[in-house]
Amino acid sequence: MKKVDLNCDLGEGFGAYRMDMDGKIIKCITSANIACGYHASDPLIMDQTVQMALHAGVGLGAHPGYPDLMGFGRRNLQASPAEVQAYVTYQLGALHAFALARGGRLSHVKPHGAMYNMAVKDSSLAKAICAAIYQFDKDLILLGLFGSCMLAEAEKMGLSIAREVFADRAYEPDGTLVARTKPGAMIENEDLAVERVVRMVQEGCVQAIDGTDIAICADSICVHGDGPKALLFTQKIRMALEHAGIQIAPLAEVVG
Amino acid sequence: MKKVDLNCDLGEGFGAYRMDMDGKIIKCITSANIACGYHASDPLIMDQTVQMALHAGVGLGAHPGYPDLMGFGRRNLQASPAEVQAYVTYQLGALHAFALARGGRLSHVKPHGAMYNMAVKDSSLAKAICAAIYQFDKDLILLGLFGSCMLAEAEKMGLSIAREVFADRAYEPDGTLVARTKPGAMIENEDLAVERVVRMVQEGCVQAIDGTDIAICADSICVHGDGPKALLFTQKIRMALEHAGIQIAPLAEVVG
Amino acid sequence: MKKVDLNCDLGEGFGAYRMDMDGKIIKCITSANIACGYHASDPLIMDQTVQMALHAGVGLGAHPGYPDLMGFGRRNLQASPAEVQAYVTYQLGALHAFALARGGRLSHVKPHGAMYNMAVKDSSLAKAICAAIYQFDKDLILLGLFGSCMLAEAEKMGLSIAREVFADRAYEPDGTLVARTKPGAMIENEDLAVERVVRMVQEGCVQAIDGTDIAICADSICVHGDGPKALLFTQKIRMALEHAGIQIAPLAEVVG
Amino acid sequence: MKKVDLNCDLGEGFGAYRMDMDGKIIKCITSANIACGYHASDPLIMDQTVQMALHAGVGLGAHPGYPDLMGFGRRNLQASPAEVQAYVTYQLGALHAFALARGGRLSHVKPHGAMYNMAVKDSSLAKAICAAIYQFDKDLILLGLFGSCMLAEAEKMGLSIAREVFADRAYEPDGTLVARTKPGAMIENEDLAVERVVRMVQEGCVQAIDGTDIAICADSICVHGDGPKALLFTQKIRMALEHAGIQIAPLAEVVG
Repeated sequence: MKKVDLNCDLGEGFGAYRMDMDGKIIKCITSANIACGYHASDPLIMDQTVQMALHAGVGLGAHPGYPDLMGFGRRNLQASPAEVQAYVTYQLGALHAFALARGGRLSHVKPHGAMYNMAVKDSSLAKAICAAIYQFDKDLILLGLFGSCMLAEAEKMGLSIAREVFADRAYEPDGTLVARTKPGAMIENEDLAVERVVRMVQEGCVQAIDGTDIAICADSICVHGDGPKALLFTQKIRMALEHAGIQIAPLAEVVG
Repeated sequence: MKKVDLNCDLGEGFGAYRMDMDGKIIKCITSANIACGYHASDPLIMDQTVQMALHAGVGLGAHPGYPDLMGFGRRNLQASPAEVQAYVTYQLGALHAFALARGGRLSHVKPHGAMYNMAVKDSSLAKAICAAIYQFDKDLILLGLFGSCMLAEAEKMGLSIAREVFADRAYEPDGTLVARTKPGAMIENEDLAVERVVRMVQEGCVQAIDGTDIAICADSICVHGDGPKALLFTQKIRMALEHAGIQIAPLAEVVG
Repeated sequence: MKKVDLNCDLGEGFGAYRMDMDGKIIKCITSANIACGYHASDPLIMDQTVQMALHAGVGLGAHPGYPDLMGFGRRNLQASPAEVQAYVTYQLGALHAFALARGGRLSHVKPHGAMYNMAVKDSSLAKAICAAIYQFDKDLILLGLFGSCMLAEAEKMGLSIAREVFADRAYEPDGTLVARTKPGAMIENEDLAVERVVRMVQEGCVQAIDGTDIAICADSICVHGDGPKALLFTQKIRMALEHAGIQIAPLAEVVG
Repeated sequence: MKKVDLNCDLGEGFGAYRMDMDGKIIKCITSANIACGYHASDPLIMDQTVQMALHAGVGLGAHPGYPDLMGFGRRNLQASPAEVQAYVTYQLGALHAFALARGGRLSHVKPHGAMYNMAVKDSSLAKAICAAIYQFDKDLILLGLFGSCMLAEAEKMGLSIAREVFADRAYEPDGTLVARTKPGAMIENEDLAVERVVRMVQEGCVQAIDGTDIAICADSICVHGDGPKALLFTQKIRMALEHAGIQIAPLAEVVG
């Protein structure tokens, strides 16, 4: 039986700024990527999010980002590999402490925003991220973009990997995402997006933007919970997958 | 044979601001209290300080503080116990990650600045700090002021404690420190200060500011390395202790 | 004809965290207290809020706070008077620059959160705040709590002041606010709250928590726009004031 | 009589981290570029630095940078032009407030670190910086790299400009700086460096790295005061310029 994970970024509030939808989306997913205080979150929110995730029985993942709260970690920052390695170590350790304090443990790591995007193509950055994870806990799974440099480096280093795909994004013939600035980059039609996701998991392929079918591996689907529309879309995806006989399961079960 | 630990705050630079004396003082001490990124330090400095401490063979301690980089964690902040507990958990976890990555482990925790001072008298704050430590790793030693509320709460909770004393501070008859604003609060005469330290360790007593002798327990002496004068004073203390037949040993040996 | 100002805190988002209701509440008020990047806000949001306020024709006020983004400036911080004076100067200047760039000018200053509350009773802190304002622009109006130490210091220094009152808070017989921790501190009944506001403006008195009538001066009423309920309550207050023949006018007209 | 300005970055401490050499270098220079709290500095240090600069009679300049305290503003950050314009406005206003409070006024602006370097070649970024300055105060002088895109955009916008040169850097035949990563990028020989500076000011030319002479305009020379060696080198440059009959004068006199 085919299995796939649904992952979502959680706990991305900060101080008085809270994310009210977290409690709803968590019921639809199997893995939570929890912000660690650099691009978003603070210790109190991390603690609450870890408790919520443990209560919901979803996998706990660290979601480390750049130290750029003002830019929500979305802006490229030319930090050195040594700096990035240290940033990831710091954030992994901090989130691990909350997991431990609440009787849980981390299952995976998914870099956030600009760090994630830059590591898709930059192998020295990718190595730095992977080295931080490997030195901290070599059993953690790295969740990253299918076909990315980051996953290639992780495999070389001996880390377990999970390949994620996007329901609402178009793919180039080489398997990379179509840049958001290009026409057709976003799959606007929700039904089509859901169909594509089911096919990616079930058949291991997707239609690229040029119309050709390409091979793709989907261990996890990235979903969003930041609004009523995103929540409904996630529920649709989940139902369609289950209806197609695919089991929704945490990362550790999918790639373990 | 009497034993005592010498502890010092280390790794308190930030970004381009470095503490050049760290490499010198580390040779004189047995326990390092390493800043964790809230009142001072950043991930790169934490990594370097952990490596330096491991290389020097001194005990690794977390030195968590308030999130007040601009005030170096020295200003009282009315954070709630839940916030403080989360701040300590976060910082402990972050430093632990660097220790783990470099093949070491934490031995102790010493709160910094205003957090330390407020927890001397505030039991709900003290409990919050101790709960964070206990939930993260109940084998960590809490290093705090002799006679403080913080140590009392730690003992109630079942944490190991280490009592620290100050060479350059006068004591009230009840064993508390004379407030810095009072005349006579600082022991200016270095020879007298050194004598007092030796007597605190050897005889378990010290002359209070009113001239009476009071009982005091000294598991560790707090020293400073932020300048040539502080370094020399620490070397004097160390030599005097050794000359008096007292063994300078890491916290775990003193209180284990 | 009696006049009163309605003031509200605006522009308190940060980075990706936005305050969606700002555009609605601004239509109901006459003075905006705009966050300056310390307890909340960032340069982009400050610029947008200044433009929105200018477009709406409301008075532009600086809303300086403590450098405690994680605590939203609501936690007491033991900063020195020199530090607080510098913090206020910094934030005033920063907001002034956006006003200037967009063709406007500041009318008033209202300290935020813990800085506001601490300066109600602490005269050295109040002096520091007033000195920063006076040195920057002696024509700025200080908006503060009726009966507070902060307003007394401002008057001594020669600053114009505006006294604000709260619709939803009970008053002690001496004119201070009933502490939030005491029963009866909040006026829960909206109709009663609205009645009280009208009476404060029209008659210059209010019933204190002990049932006695006390004198009160209301140059401005503090309202909130952070939610549909707060917005409706503000609209009610505004309508009741207008119905009672009171003119809603910017601070400069009320106290000028 | 030829004139040239000597400019130096000042006030780049933060909180407990202080720059002890500021008081020495200020006696050798005519323009101070004062950090504004984003890449370095805090309100208290800004106030002290403004007072020191006014006392020394040097020109007050704003030295705005990226919001990257951990990286000292030296790391490229992909902020949008709108963000950068707002960052510069914010920092200009903040520094202006201290100048005003202490009876002075700003003479110039020099962007810091990565913002300066990126604006050498990126015209949309350069425009954003210039627009912030122009909207705040069109009489401020923009101090930037000779031959840079930033100065070209400033001139188009109608801002006064001052062209700075470096004593210790080699030049390409097209007048740009030789990248630090290339051999020969730094002029290691101090006497040669001093000679080159005098020639740049006196003759308006310098020998490029390929041996050819190129035209260069030097309104200001960038010097450093962060260490005894840098201080001595600055003194040498100053003496050599004076000995050659060149007047050391503030920016406003050189380009006014």
